[in-house]
Amino acid sequence: MIISMKKGATKEQIEHVCRRIQEFGYKVHSIQGEERVVIGAVGVGDVTACLESLEAAPGVESAVRISSPYKFVSREFKPEPTRVRVDGAELGGGEFVVMAGPCSVENEKQIMAAAEGVARAGAKILRGGAFKPRTSPYDFQGLELEGLKLLAKARQATGLAVVTEIMSDGDVNRVAEVADILQVGARNMQNFALLKALGKCPKPILLKRGMSSTVKELLMSAEYITAHGNPNIILCERGIRTFETATRNTCDIAAVAVLHELTHLPVILDPSHASGKRSLVPALARAGVAIGADGLIVEVHPEPEKALSDGAQSLSLAEFSRMMEELKPYLGLWKASRSVAAPAPA
Amino acid sequence: MIISMKKGATKEQIEHVCRRIQEFGYKVHSIQGEERVVIGAVGVGDVTACLESLEAAPGVESAVRISSPYKFVSREFKPEPTRVRVDGAELGGGEFVVMAGPCSVENEKQIMAAAEGVARAGAKILRGGAFKPRTSPYDFQGLELEGLKLLAKARQATGLAVVTEIMSDGDVNRVAEVADILQVGARNMQNFALLKALGKCPKPILLKRGMSSTVKELLMSAEYITAHGNPNIILCERGIRTFETATRNTCDIAAVAVLHELTHLPVILDPSHASGKRSLVPALARAGVAIGADGLIVEVHPEPEKALSDGAQSLSLAEFSRMMEELKPYLGLWKASRSVAAPAPA
Amino acid sequence: MIISMKKGATKEQIEHVCRRIQEFGYKVHSIQGEERVVIGAVGVGDVTACLESLEAAPGVESAVRISSPYKFVSREFKPEPTRVRVDGAELGGGEFVVMAGPCSVENEKQIMAAAEGVARAGAKILRGGAFKPRTSPYDFQGLELEGLKLLAKARQATGLAVVTEIMSDGDVNRVAEVADILQVGARNMQNFALLKALGKCPKPILLKRGMSSTVKELLMSAEYITAHGNPNIILCERGIRTFETATRNTCDIAAVAVLHELTHLPVILDPSHASGKRSLVPALARAGVAIGADGLIVEVHPEPEKALSDGAQSLSLAEFSRMMEELKPYLGLWKASRSVAAPAPA
Amino acid sequence: MIISMKKGATKEQIEHVCRRIQEFGYKVHSIQGEERVVIGAVGVGDVTACLESLEAAPGVESAVRISSPYKFVSREFKPEPTRVRVDGAELGGGEFVVMAGPCSVENEKQIMAAAEGVARAGAKILRGGAFKPRTSPYDFQGLELEGLKLLAKARQATGLAVVTEIMSDGDVNRVAEVADILQVGARNMQNFALLKALGKCPKPILLKRGMSSTVKELLMSAEYITAHGNPNIILCERGIRTFETATRNTCDIAAVAVLHELTHLPVILDPSHASGKRSLVPALARAGVAIGADGLIVEVHPEPEKALSDGAQSLSLAEFSRMMEELKPYLGLWKASRSVAAPAPA
Repeated sequence: MIISMKKGATKEQIEHVCRRIQEFGYKVHSIQGEERVVIGAVGVGDVTACLESLEAAPGVESAVRISSPYKFVSREFKPEPTRVRVDGAELGGGEFVVMAGPCSVENEKQIMAAAEGVARAGAKILRGGAFKPRTSPYDFQGLELEGLKLLAKARQATGLAVVTEIMSDGDVNRVAEVADILQVGARNMQNFALLKALGKCPKPILLKRGMSSTVKELLMSAEYITAHGNPNIILCERGIRTFETATRNTCDIAAVAVLHELTHLPVILDPSHASGKRSLVPALARAGVAIGADGLIVEVHPEPEKALSDGAQSLSLAEFSRMMEELKPYLGLWKASRSVAAPAPA
Repeated sequence: MIISMKKGATKEQIEHVCRRIQEFGYKVHSIQGEERVVIGAVGVGDVTACLESLEAAPGVESAVRISSPYKFVSREFKPEPTRVRVDGAELGGGEFVVMAGPCSVENEKQIMAAAEGVARAGAKILRGGAFKPRTSPYDFQGLELEGLKLLAKARQATGLAVVTEIMSDGDVNRVAEVADILQVGARNMQNFALLKALGKCPKPILLKRGMSSTVKELLMSAEYITAHGNPNIILCERGIRTFETATRNTCDIAAVAVLHELTHLPVILDPSHASGKRSLVPALARAGVAIGADGLIVEVHPEPEKALSDGAQSLSLAEFSRMMEELKPYLGLWKASRSVAAPAPA
Repeated sequence: MIISMKKGATKEQIEHVCRRIQEFGYKVHSIQGEERVVIGAVGVGDVTACLESLEAAPGVESAVRISSPYKFVSREFKPEPTRVRVDGAELGGGEFVVMAGPCSVENEKQIMAAAEGVARAGAKILRGGAFKPRTSPYDFQGLELEGLKLLAKARQATGLAVVTEIMSDGDVNRVAEVADILQVGARNMQNFALLKALGKCPKPILLKRGMSSTVKELLMSAEYITAHGNPNIILCERGIRTFETATRNTCDIAAVAVLHELTHLPVILDPSHASGKRSLVPALARAGVAIGADGLIVEVHPEPEKALSDGAQSLSLAEFSRMMEELKPYLGLWKASRSVAAPAPA
Repeated sequence: MIISMKKGATKEQIEHVCRRIQEFGYKVHSIQGEERVVIGAVGVGDVTACLESLEAAPGVESAVRISSPYKFVSREFKPEPTRVRVDGAELGGGEFVVMAGPCSVENEKQIMAAAEGVARAGAKILRGGAFKPRTSPYDFQGLELEGLKLLAKARQATGLAVVTEIMSDGDVNRVAEVADILQVGARNMQNFALLKALGKCPKPILLKRGMSSTVKELLMSAEYITAHGNPNIILCERGIRTFETATRNTCDIAAVAVLHELTHLPVILDPSHASGKRSLVPALARAGVAIGADGLIVEVHPEPEKALSDGAQSLSLAEFSRMMEELKPYLGLWKASRSVAAPAPA
């Protein structure tokens, strides 16, 4: 920690801060600058508690931690990439994995058509929501248990693994029975009760970035899951909330490269939510491959116009198929870069 | 709904859109503009589904709803202010209610000292966290059940009502046993499983605005709780996330006035989280009274420097007491304005 | 400056950084932490250049300045408040000053009616744009020189001082001939050519915060003007750009209190641009008085519906008059607080 | 325009609005919805003035324009891409153009080394600032006229075209004497005096997006330049300001694709300012090529550690050279996509 004292801080205030630092088990290094005193605290202790205390002490201008607040998910802790395996696919290694499917599971015909269509086009994992987080209580809330059953059917028919969203810590067991990957949606990225429960779940977790969460907060949420026992986490950039309204969210594409520097976990891109507009999805998907993401998650619907949710950003099966075709040469370059620069593509 | 067609939209596309609108049970009003066709859809139907469908239809530029997406919480639905009653206080009427106390319940001595101190200074409701949403899994997570017991003790000793945070739909019953008001924190404002469970809870809900949620989304979350059965909701502005780092959040003070225009629910201000800095709390509290908030929720700690969380933004008991004293003349003006302009202070 | 080295930084990298720091004239204080080396640089030198260099050096994680980047405008440099005097009013002292008038000067009748109306209601300074920054080249761009002449006429008729916007460094002289205060609009807050030219201008400057500028950047722009010779600056909070669309901008009311802590310059609030909506202006004005602003700048138009710009946020003369009446008791409290706590109201 | 009346709007208010619409020269189409009346205004007139007036009229909820506010720069107006030609390069056609060089021109040796280095690596245009917009008045402000002379020398020596920033409408002539392309920096994107002056300039303009400007505002600023006579404009995405601090700005990569849908003007990406961090520049550059940008502008310095500005985000000549080499296969795919889908890559 580095503590900057205010310009006119008194000798007593400075001594008080030094004493507090020592009470927390740290050593004190004091620097007398031209304008103010700066104090370094070195050692091992309860950083957060110490920071909170010092920020509240009289005469203190600011108190800043230097060490990173996460440990298990950091690349410093584990330099080699984590490979997350599900039935038929591996993320974080030499394979670019595409997850695709409708926003919501609506009925058997729809999810079967979607599953078969995306499998044919090259997706390895089927996405589809059974529990849906909707802004309005009056909108379609998902088929819930019935939706899970339909996903299981679609998996059996196509061999695709299944990723689906979980919205409450009380649902972990029944969702984990069906899902190969449990998805934490953007609105629940800091639902800590849920994160703790997922730490005890044996299935991999797809953790989507909150719409106003920093990269560091995303990593802290992943740290929650890991610290509670589950290291199989896939991170997902899905766009953040900004002042721009031309797109539904602002795709923070650089976050993919930043995350690859900071963590060993695989990172995928969701070009559908990041843009909110069907015509932009293939362009963002290309950018995601080029920047080195480990995969994509894409909304695809057999009849976008009849979708009960997210119709405007869903590709039709034909559009998805065309996009996958167009991505092929980019995926060739992606594979080549992976075989050269093993640890991090950035 | 108003649907704007693209400039070059074909006759077939326009007819297709009109047919879709009618299939959803609406009447069509088509306007031929200079540049493009604009279509109005009038009637009663599933607005969201219809919008989703139209946004996905070929030739459509945009589809916008005109009616507001919430109903029960709107002032149009119920013009007179909702009064939320708890033991010893009423929000939304002629009384300005101050909730105060520590961020976390830490031990008996601390919560008792806090409760007695804030009661003496004029607070009517004691705040204190038993379940704590912390960004880091390594930070103090709250005393949980033990914390609830201590809150019950403090209530008994002081007569203050108690507001405390709830983080999971599985905890509603045990928290509702102790709390007079259940608080939904900013990070859970769109935890829809929790909102639905709280709709069935007999206690009032304090719903904090998410740090990147719009006023409209806050109202939609309140609509969830109401639509599931619980109309006793207090809204809280607690600062939003912006690019500015001089304060922990940006206090969107205008939201208080905007909410009073749009809804009949009481609205309080949290000057502690809105600023993150003790020295700014009294100034924001004054602004909150002046703009017509129905109350405040303020972090107060007997020894801010020893707080396990939020020390930098907690007032000491002496500081809180001074602030309450300074607010008195402003509260006089507040009361005078309430007795004149009954429905909305804005 | 505090320079944090990366976790695995080599001895050579650390020595290289220490040498660079010394080349820039600073003394080195090195702290060996558990995880990484942290280096303090103490003394006087070209901070920015040194930081830039160190950030680019190998092995460096981050380089952060501790001293504040502005000097003349800081409260540390000059603790007592700066009083900016214009004909008939003084900002920053014991007087709350209201500036009011139309967005644009449109014609003689309009500006005369506005000037007389706002003077009657208690405004001391007339606002009115002759040069207008409009997003579209096809919108009304202001009467320019003709507008300045009409402002001079209005001043003569009413005795009000005049504040008007300046958009180019080439216009300083002709605008300064008429205006008592030259306004730098939000879009030009970092038009450094203009700021430099205004440093040589003998008239006070009203510097509006850029819509995405931090408080610190606002102070740096004020420092530009002061460093080039003109210390008579009034700062203005006018709302910042965020994700929220319920208001035109988000009024960062806390910035008023933050600025009063950091600078001796007077700070006013613009409730019209901050909200963009007429019905919210009086509520924000009250909040501005309560938080301790030194004044307000308010858009008022004799016929808002016929305004060539900003009609939706302009008060009519009757509405303005009513607002001024309602503010009176709040201004009483404001005056009382000024006579007690002389230096800073926060 | 579509005008939504408030729910309880009276017959008189509705008639008044209809009359106002007709006074502005539009035809009225009124739709009686379930909840409220919606009025369409069709025809040709002064849209902005009419909107302003209606927003201020009693009983009006909102007034929204349907037609786009820009004309000359829209793809609807001119479907085929605009090709901007400078000495030795053409943007917007079949060529991907890289501009590179230091943030500031510092001295002859530096700019010559930079120019030769970037030319060798494949850049076609030399960037370098003579007039520098710096947040602090105490930072290096550029060599100004001397800097322009050095740029001219570098051009002569290498044959590279030159792009350099212009900060005041008073400088257009002398900058245009030397520069092949005049750059408007992010902070001046809405410096309308400057935009108007550049409309009369015979040289192409590189218009950078303001750090909190929407895509639509960027197009409006381009419309200013075009409407005043100069259609040769290159747009540049350089990152926007958000809450995220892991990068200097947030690269809104989707804006490249959005702009290609909306305008015929060429669009380039600035991966240096978009990230602020040297290690991220090559990754963002790849994403820029993949999404179909027309070129890049990259900060390159012979000795980043000795740069007077932007050292942390500048590539060394070796790093730039390596990046250009790595981009080659991506540029192959870029060219292939251009020869297929002529008008818009998105």
